[in-house]
Amino acid sequence: MSGPRIRVVNPNTTASMTASAVAAARRAAPHATVEGSTPSRGVDSVESHVDEVWGALGVLEQVLAGERAGTDAYVVACFGDTGVPAAREVARGPVVGMTEAALLTAALVAHRFTVVTLPRRTREQSDRVVGALGLGHRCVVRAVDVPVAEVHEDSTHLLETFVEQGRLALEEDAAEALVLGCAGLTDLVDPLRARLGVPVVEGVAAATTLAVALLAQGVGTSRAATWAAPERLGPVGA
Amino acid sequence: MSGPRIRVVNPNTTASMTASAVAAARRAAPHATVEGSTPSRGVDSVESHVDEVWGALGVLEQVLAGERAGTDAYVVACFGDTGVPAAREVARGPVVGMTEAALLTAALVAHRFTVVTLPRRTREQSDRVVGALGLGHRCVVRAVDVPVAEVHEDSTHLLETFVEQGRLALEEDAAEALVLGCAGLTDLVDPLRARLGVPVVEGVAAATTLAVALLAQGVGTSRAATWAAPERLGPVGA
Amino acid sequence: MSGPRIRVVNPNTTASMTASAVAAARRAAPHATVEGSTPSRGVDSVESHVDEVWGALGVLEQVLAGERAGTDAYVVACFGDTGVPAAREVARGPVVGMTEAALLTAALVAHRFTVVTLPRRTREQSDRVVGALGLGHRCVVRAVDVPVAEVHEDSTHLLETFVEQGRLALEEDAAEALVLGCAGLTDLVDPLRARLGVPVVEGVAAATTLAVALLAQGVGTSRAATWAAPERLGPVGA
Amino acid sequence: MSGPRIRVVNPNTTASMTASAVAAARRAAPHATVEGSTPSRGVDSVESHVDEVWGALGVLEQVLAGERAGTDAYVVACFGDTGVPAAREVARGPVVGMTEAALLTAALVAHRFTVVTLPRRTREQSDRVVGALGLGHRCVVRAVDVPVAEVHEDSTHLLETFVEQGRLALEEDAAEALVLGCAGLTDLVDPLRARLGVPVVEGVAAATTLAVALLAQGVGTSRAATWAAPERLGPVGA
Amino acid sequence: MSGPRIRVVNPNTTASMTASAVAAARRAAPHATVEGSTPSRGVDSVESHVDEVWGALGVLEQVLAGERAGTDAYVVACFGDTGVPAAREVARGPVVGMTEAALLTAALVAHRFTVVTLPRRTREQSDRVVGALGLGHRCVVRAVDVPVAEVHEDSTHLLETFVEQGRLALEEDAAEALVLGCAGLTDLVDPLRARLGVPVVEGVAAATTLAVALLAQGVGTSRAATWAAPERLGPVGA
Amino acid sequence: MSGPRIRVVNPNTTASMTASAVAAARRAAPHATVEGSTPSRGVDSVESHVDEVWGALGVLEQVLAGERAGTDAYVVACFGDTGVPAAREVARGPVVGMTEAALLTAALVAHRFTVVTLPRRTREQSDRVVGALGLGHRCVVRAVDVPVAEVHEDSTHLLETFVEQGRLALEEDAAEALVLGCAGLTDLVDPLRARLGVPVVEGVAAATTLAVALLAQGVGTSRAATWAAPERLGPVGA
Repeated sequence: MSGPRIRVVNPNTTASMTASAVAAARRAAPHATVEGSTPSRGVDSVESHVDEVWGALGVLEQVLAGERAGTDAYVVACFGDTGVPAAREVARGPVVGMTEAALLTAALVAHRFTVVTLPRRTREQSDRVVGALGLGHRCVVRAVDVPVAEVHEDSTHLLETFVEQGRLALEEDAAEALVLGCAGLTDLVDPLRARLGVPVVEGVAAATTLAVALLAQGVGTSRAATWAAPERLGPVGA
Repeated sequence: MSGPRIRVVNPNTTASMTASAVAAARRAAPHATVEGSTPSRGVDSVESHVDEVWGALGVLEQVLAGERAGTDAYVVACFGDTGVPAAREVARGPVVGMTEAALLTAALVAHRFTVVTLPRRTREQSDRVVGALGLGHRCVVRAVDVPVAEVHEDSTHLLETFVEQGRLALEEDAAEALVLGCAGLTDLVDPLRARLGVPVVEGVAAATTLAVALLAQGVGTSRAATWAAPERLGPVGA
Repeated sequence: MSGPRIRVVNPNTTASMTASAVAAARRAAPHATVEGSTPSRGVDSVESHVDEVWGALGVLEQVLAGERAGTDAYVVACFGDTGVPAAREVARGPVVGMTEAALLTAALVAHRFTVVTLPRRTREQSDRVVGALGLGHRCVVRAVDVPVAEVHEDSTHLLETFVEQGRLALEEDAAEALVLGCAGLTDLVDPLRARLGVPVVEGVAAATTLAVALLAQGVGTSRAATWAAPERLGPVGA
Repeated sequence: MSGPRIRVVNPNTTASMTASAVAAARRAAPHATVEGSTPSRGVDSVESHVDEVWGALGVLEQVLAGERAGTDAYVVACFGDTGVPAAREVARGPVVGMTEAALLTAALVAHRFTVVTLPRRTREQSDRVVGALGLGHRCVVRAVDVPVAEVHEDSTHLLETFVEQGRLALEEDAAEALVLGCAGLTDLVDPLRARLGVPVVEGVAAATTLAVALLAQGVGTSRAATWAAPERLGPVGA
Repeated sequence: MSGPRIRVVNPNTTASMTASAVAAARRAAPHATVEGSTPSRGVDSVESHVDEVWGALGVLEQVLAGERAGTDAYVVACFGDTGVPAAREVARGPVVGMTEAALLTAALVAHRFTVVTLPRRTREQSDRVVGALGLGHRCVVRAVDVPVAEVHEDSTHLLETFVEQGRLALEEDAAEALVLGCAGLTDLVDPLRARLGVPVVEGVAAATTLAVALLAQGVGTSRAATWAAPERLGPVGA
Repeated sequence: MSGPRIRVVNPNTTASMTASAVAAARRAAPHATVEGSTPSRGVDSVESHVDEVWGALGVLEQVLAGERAGTDAYVVACFGDTGVPAAREVARGPVVGMTEAALLTAALVAHRFTVVTLPRRTREQSDRVVGALGLGHRCVVRAVDVPVAEVHEDSTHLLETFVEQGRLALEEDAAEALVLGCAGLTDLVDPLRARLGVPVVEGVAAATTLAVALLAQGVGTSRAATWAAPERLGPVGA
C-alpha cells in the first residue's frame, strides 16, 4: 500500500455514512491509502447547529487519533465543513472540507452553479461556506426538506427529487453544474450526471482530490495566525 | 427582583471572566436579573478554533441549564460568538452574541469603525462575524498579539496598547468608533473613551441591551428553518 | 414619570401616524417617557424622494425642538430613515431610524429575511438602508403598490395582502422573518405573527428599543467626523 | 444660442461657486446653453448632513424653476449628489449628479482611482455614492480637512495639498486617476494633471457631458418606480 | 465635416453589423465624424469565448489602423467589450465599450435594470462587465437563446421576444430600464421603448456619447499602470 | 509512461519559460505525463493587455494541437489566466488557469493571503481573477515593477525583493500565505518558504494538481452554456 494516507473524518457516528464516504474517496484517489474515521461518541447525523457542536468535537477527536496514526491529510465529510478550522489547527498536514472543496471544484467547471442541500434548515451552513469563499455571485443554494438520517444507507430514492431541483437550477438559476449538499448522496452522482447532462460535484470526492493536490504541491496549512497550533487541545485531563 | 432574566454565558471556565461580564451586563441592564453562567468543563480561555469547539460545548451546556432555570434571554460573552447558533436552537428566548451586538451598536453611532481584538490569531473569528453581517465596507479588524489569558483578571495594563491602536484606527482606518474585541476588556471602556474621545463599544454590554431590546419587542429567534428547535441535544444519554 | 425621554419624530404631518407610532414605541419601552413629534409644516405622507426632502426638513425642525426640550434619544418613524443623518448631527443623544433598527433586529433572529414595503416606488429607499448596512446577502425587499396615505389611520385592511407577501417571502426568498416596511403598519404585527408563525419586525418598536439600548450602554453618536456637530443649522435667520 | 439647455444647480447660496461651476460646465459643453441656478435661500456651503437638508430643498426649488424655464437637463453641482433623487422625480429631462458622473468617468479611464474630498466629515457623502454605484472595489476615498467655505472663490492655494494626496493615492491606493471631491476645485484640474500625470476628473464637467450624452441617446429618467413623478411637490401652498 | 473623429470598431467581420452600428453612433453623435471599422479577418459573429479571441485581434488591428488615421476616440461595438483593454493601451484617445457604456447609462436613469443578451451562452460576458463595474446589486442579466448571426441584418423579428423578456424584467427583477445586450439590436430600441414605457439603452449609442463626453472633458485613458502603452504590438514582423 | 496526459500551455513564445513550467508541473504531478506547449507565433512575454490578445491566440492554437494529440487536461501557465475561457470551449477535458488555481489553493491553507505579481501594470489581470472568484475580502494584490522578460531564464535575483514584499504582506495585509504572481517564479518557491515561514503557492504546480483533481473526480467543463463547444474555431480557412 502506498501513496499518501488520507483520513476521511465523518463528524457523525453512523458507520454506514463513513463507509460510503470512504468508498467515494477511494474512487477519487486510487493511489492513496484512505481510511475512515468515525467518532466514538456524538450524534448519528448532523442536521442542526447543535449537532454541529457535537460533530466538531468528533472531528477534533478523530483528527487527534489520525495524528497519532501518521495521517498525511484529512477530509471532513459533512456539508457545512463542521470542525474544519479546529482540525486545521491540530493536523500537521492539510485539511479539506467537503463543502469548500465542492464549491471550488464547481467554480473551475461552471460559471454559475447551484448547491442542493438537505434538510432545509441547514441552508445557513451552506451559505456560511459560500460566504467565506466569496462565491455568492456565482452560486445559489437550494434545499430539499429531507433529513440527513434518511440517506444514511442509500439516497437513490431521492433521485427524482434531485432531478427536479437540478432542472429548476438549470432553468431558474442559470446553473451550469450541480453541487450535492450532503455526504450521504454519493450514489446520486452518476444517475444525476446522466439525467441532467451537467457536471455533478460530490464533496467527499472533491475534498479527497484537493487534499492530494495540496500534498502534491507541498503546501500545508499556514501557521502564521488563524490556524497556528493551539496552546491546548481541550480541558485539562481530556 | 424584577425585569427579565438574562443569562450571560461565558464559553470558558474562568469564573473571574464570568464575573466581570456579569458586572458589565448589570451596569447596562439595571432592571434585569442578570446571572452568570460558567461551563463545568472546558478551556479556561478561548484563543483558537480548538478552544471554540470546547467553548461551544460549554455554551450549549449552560444554555440547557438556563432553560431549566427559566431564562428569558442569553448573552454569549466571547468575541467570535462561539456557540451562538446552537444556543439559538435550544433557547426559548433570544440569544445575542457579544460580537454581533457590538458591531450592530457601532453601526448605529459611527459610519466607519474598527475592532481591536486579541490575540492576533483570532482575527478570523472577528472577520467571520463581520462577514456574516455584511459590515466589511464599514469595519476594519485590528489585532494585538496578547493572549486572552492575560486579561482574565484585569486589562488595565493594556490601556496604552489600546490607545495606540485606537489612534491608528482613527487616523488610518478613518474609524469613528472602537469596538473592543474581547470579553475581558470591560475595564478599558471608560479610560479609552476619555483618551480617544470617540464611542468605545463593549460587546457584553451591547449584547445585554440588545437582548433586552428583543424581549421588549416580543421578537424571538425564528423557528422557520436555520434555528428551529433541533431533533436532539447531543449523544444518546448525554 | 421616569426613564429616558425618547422622542418619536414623524417626518410627515399626519398626527394620526404620529399617534400610532408613539403607541408602538410606548409598548416597546414602557419605562421610557415617549413623546411624539409632528412637523409643523411638510407633507402628509412620505412616498417619494421629493417627500423625503420635506420630511428631512421636518425631522430637523423637530429634533431641534426636542433638543430644547431635553430629549435623551430620538426615533425617526419613516421607512427609509429620512433625515436621520442630519438628526444625528444636531442631537446630543442617539438617533435611530426605524429601517436600520428593523433590519438589525431581524439579523439577530433570522438568517434570511424579507422587507415588505409600500408603495412600490419606495423600494429604493429600503435598498438604500439595506446597502448602507451591507445586509443585501440576507435580505430581500418586496413592495406592494399601496400608497402610504392609505394606512394613515389603520392598516388592517391590508392583512391579506401582507399574508400573501409573507408566504411568498417564506417560500421564494427563504425568509425566516418579515420586516414591515412602513411606520403605518403597527396594527399588522400581531395578526401577521399569528398567521405566518415567524417573527414580524416593526421598525418603530425596534428603533425605540435600540435607542434605549444605546442609552443604557452610554454610547452616543460619534463626533469624530461623519456626524460631528454642524457649523450651522440652516439659513441665516431660520 | 443653440444646443440643449443645461441647468447647473448649485445646492448652496454662494453665487461665486455657481459661477465657477457654470464656467466648468460651459468649457465641457460648448454647444449647450448652460445656465446657473442658485437657491434663493439656504446655506452658503454644504459641509454636513444638516446642510444637505437645506441643499436638497434648494435643488428642488431650482429644478422646479428650471422646469418652468424649459430646461432640458440638470447637473447638480455638489459632491455627495444632494437632492438628485428628488430632482429626478420633478425634472422632465435627465438629472446627473457631479459625484456619480465623476466616478463613472473615472471608471472608464482608470482601473483603480481615488476621490479626494473635503472636509473630512463629508467622507460618508462620497462613500454613499461609491456604494450606490458599487465601485468600492476600485475606488478609495481620501479626505483633506479643509472646509468647503475655503474654496468659495478659489482653490489654487490647496494645490500642494492635493498634489500630496494625489501622490499618496498613486502610491498607496494604486490609483491611476484622481477624482476631485468638491464643486469648488475646478481651478485645480489643469495644474494637478500637469503635476501628477494622470487623469484628474472634475465632477461638474463630467456631469455636464453625461447630461449631454443622455440627451443625445434620447434616454431619460425611468418613470417605472423609483423616480416616477411625485404626487405632490411640497406642503400645500408651498 | 467637423467634430471629433470617432471610430466604431466592430469585432466581427460582418459589414452589415458595422453599418448599423455606425448608423446608431451617428444618430447619437451628429456633430462627430463617425467611421466604421471592420476587421479584415476574423469571425462573422462573436458568440463564444473562442470568437472573442479573434474579435480582440480584430479590434487591435482596427484600432492600430485608426491610430494611423488620426482617430480621436473609439467605440467597441460588441456586447462583452471584447478587446477594449488592449484597445485602451494602443489608442491615444479614449476607448469605450458598448457594454460598460450601456450599464453606466442605465445606472443614471434607473435604480434597477436588466440586460437582455443573446445567445444564452454569452451571459458570462455580460456578468463579467457587470462585475468589473460592481453593478451586480442593481442589475440582472437575462438571456434569450438566439445566435448573434440571426440579427446580422435586422432584429425586428425578435421584438415580441424582447417585449416578453422586458415585461418579465419589470415584474420579476423590479427593473426600471432595459439594456439591449447585443450590437445587432439597434432597430429594437424605438419599438421597445414604445411597448414597455421604460428607457431602453442601446450600447453603441451609449458608448458613442460617452466617448464624446470623455473628449469634451479632456480626460483620456490613464497611462499610470493598467493601460499604459505596451512595449510591443504583437509578434515581431506582425 | 502512464497517468493522465497534461499539457502545460505557455501563452508566450519563450521556450525556457515553457520548460520551467513543465518542470514545476512534473514535480507536482509525478504520475502524469506532462507535456509543454509553446505557441508557434506570438509575443515572447505577456506583460500587457495587447500581449494577452496574442497570448490567447497562442493558447487557442496550442489547445487545438493538444486536442489532436489526445490531451486529458490543460494548464494555462500565465498569471491572468489568458485564454482560459476559450481553451475551456475547445478542450474535451478540463482546463485550469494558474491564477485561479493558486488563489483556490491559498484559500484552503490561509485565511488571508497576498498575491505578489509583476510587472506593476498587470495588477488588473490579478484583480480580474480575484474578482471572478469573489476572493477580494481575503486577498490583497501587490505588484513589483519588474518586467516578465526579466524572469525568462531565472528569478533568483528577485529573492530579496520578494522577501521584502512577503514581509510587508504578513505585516500590513495580515497575509498568512503568499501567491507568486507569474509563471517565471518557480525557483523562488523553496527559498521564499524558507525565508518567510508561510505557504508560498506557485500557480503552475497548483493548476497541475487541480487538473489532476478534476480528472480524478470525473468532472469536466460544463457544456450547459458559458463554455459549450463553439460553433467555429476561427476565421474560415484558419
